[in-house]
Amino acid sequence: MNPARPVFFVSDHTGITAEIIGKSLLSQYPDEAFATESLPFVDSQEKAQNAAAHIKDSSKVSSLRPFVFSSLTDPDARDALNASDALVMDIYGQFLGMMTAEIGHPATPARGKFHAMGDQNTYTSRIDALNFSLATDDGMALKYDRADLILVGVSRSGKTPTSLYMAMQYGLCVANYPLTPEHFDHFDLPAVLKPHLRKLRGLTLSPQRLSQIRAERRPNSDYASLETCKMELTTAETMLRSAGIPVLDSTTRSVEEIAALLRQSLTNPTVQRPA
Amino acid sequence: MNPARPVFFVSDHTGITAEIIGKSLLSQYPDEAFATESLPFVDSQEKAQNAAAHIKDSSKVSSLRPFVFSSLTDPDARDALNASDALVMDIYGQFLGMMTAEIGHPATPARGKFHAMGDQNTYTSRIDALNFSLATDDGMALKYDRADLILVGVSRSGKTPTSLYMAMQYGLCVANYPLTPEHFDHFDLPAVLKPHLRKLRGLTLSPQRLSQIRAERRPNSDYASLETCKMELTTAETMLRSAGIPVLDSTTRSVEEIAALLRQSLTNPTVQRPA
Repeated sequence: MNPARPVFFVSDHTGITAEIIGKSLLSQYPDEAFATESLPFVDSQEKAQNAAAHIKDSSKVSSLRPFVFSSLTDPDARDALNASDALVMDIYGQFLGMMTAEIGHPATPARGKFHAMGDQNTYTSRIDALNFSLATDDGMALKYDRADLILVGVSRSGKTPTSLYMAMQYGLCVANYPLTPEHFDHFDLPAVLKPHLRKLRGLTLSPQRLSQIRAERRPNSDYASLETCKMELTTAETMLRSAGIPVLDSTTRSVEEIAALLRQSLTNPTVQRPA
Repeated sequence: MNPARPVFFVSDHTGITAEIIGKSLLSQYPDEAFATESLPFVDSQEKAQNAAAHIKDSSKVSSLRPFVFSSLTDPDARDALNASDALVMDIYGQFLGMMTAEIGHPATPARGKFHAMGDQNTYTSRIDALNFSLATDDGMALKYDRADLILVGVSRSGKTPTSLYMAMQYGLCVANYPLTPEHFDHFDLPAVLKPHLRKLRGLTLSPQRLSQIRAERRPNSDYASLETCKMELTTAETMLRSAGIPVLDSTTRSVEEIAALLRQSLTNPTVQRPA
């Protein structure tokens, strides 16, 4: 393994944008080692100069030129950063020029507008969605008329993290309902779900993975046994598919991937269940 | 208001990176109207051509040239997109070239590596952190030895969304503990928190805002009255500050901002409480 290259995410606000872009780009060099550091809230010229000095210091320790991913909006602060001798990936500098040329008037520099409460409606709707997902977690509070989606699956199939993530990221009201052994005697969808067929999405995963996840909670239990997991998953999947509910496999998918696929299923008829 | 310009977020994976960069840049033009659409999972040459055709169609309807924020990794797919006549903000095209020149060997194109389960350890630790935050929400399951942070504050001061967000985004184990009227008789920190002083962070907000938030849950209640809110907030803040616990005001801050500040307080001594 090569020595680690110093990498900085510099932002005048939370640093979320710079960090996501940076990590996304770094992931394209899987054989390189990077030592990352976040420098958020660099919101004055003095702080920008301090950040540049800190970055310059790091290049004295490492033999590799530092990488900087910057979402600084202030042109003077961006200049200060460029003087650090690092390779600066200047997100705003790069793209705002292109956009401004097309729009015909310059941007209104507004620090961290996107991750602030700026757009109060959007922000409030995301927090409302999160509260909705918490209140309707695990089959509690069946306020399904308000739900955008209702996730259905056996215990520990990933419903809760997915619901919370979709609320936070997309502002969608996502409820979730667990299928438990009591439902399996009937081989029929729980009555409370039937009026909401179009909102239902199933989550499944491999019995091996489910057994592993459950064993972390209750080792050596019947609940975590491979046999129980197989039986529950097969019954649940049969139940969901025969009701025409699309089922997603989360075995090798991250919460972000499941969330993006589920969101797409709201608008894209090709992944929607047949009407 | 000008007519809305069509904007597309194109990705061969979840589209999270393209969407965050795009929305962040669009927020710099608050007077412009944009009609945004996400096109995730564009993971074949055929899908890239379909996306380009869809984008081209949109420019027939609008008089404004479409903007495209693309995180496509495949060079051929990027070429297909560039042929759409839209203004393409090509995140990978722009920055990977710079990085490759410095690193000395080309990137290993890997679709959506960052938001996949790719780095199994990091991914698992984020899901573990989320489960930890859920299990320790609202003073349940006091497993504070494992906690990175413990948020303390009155009911509805923003502890839960912040805990969940920090787990999801940063993989930090963030517990939260509510200060309720029973604690206020003692004017002293609850005993269960005392061994963990260095991990404690207080959340507060204006009485007006708290009253408003509580009234959405229980309108016209004593719980939501401005008087109750004032009393609880004053007592809680006095209690926290006299124990040397840093207190953050969430009145005008988003969950992302609070989370970034709290994370910074873990590493940056200038915002840490005095030892």
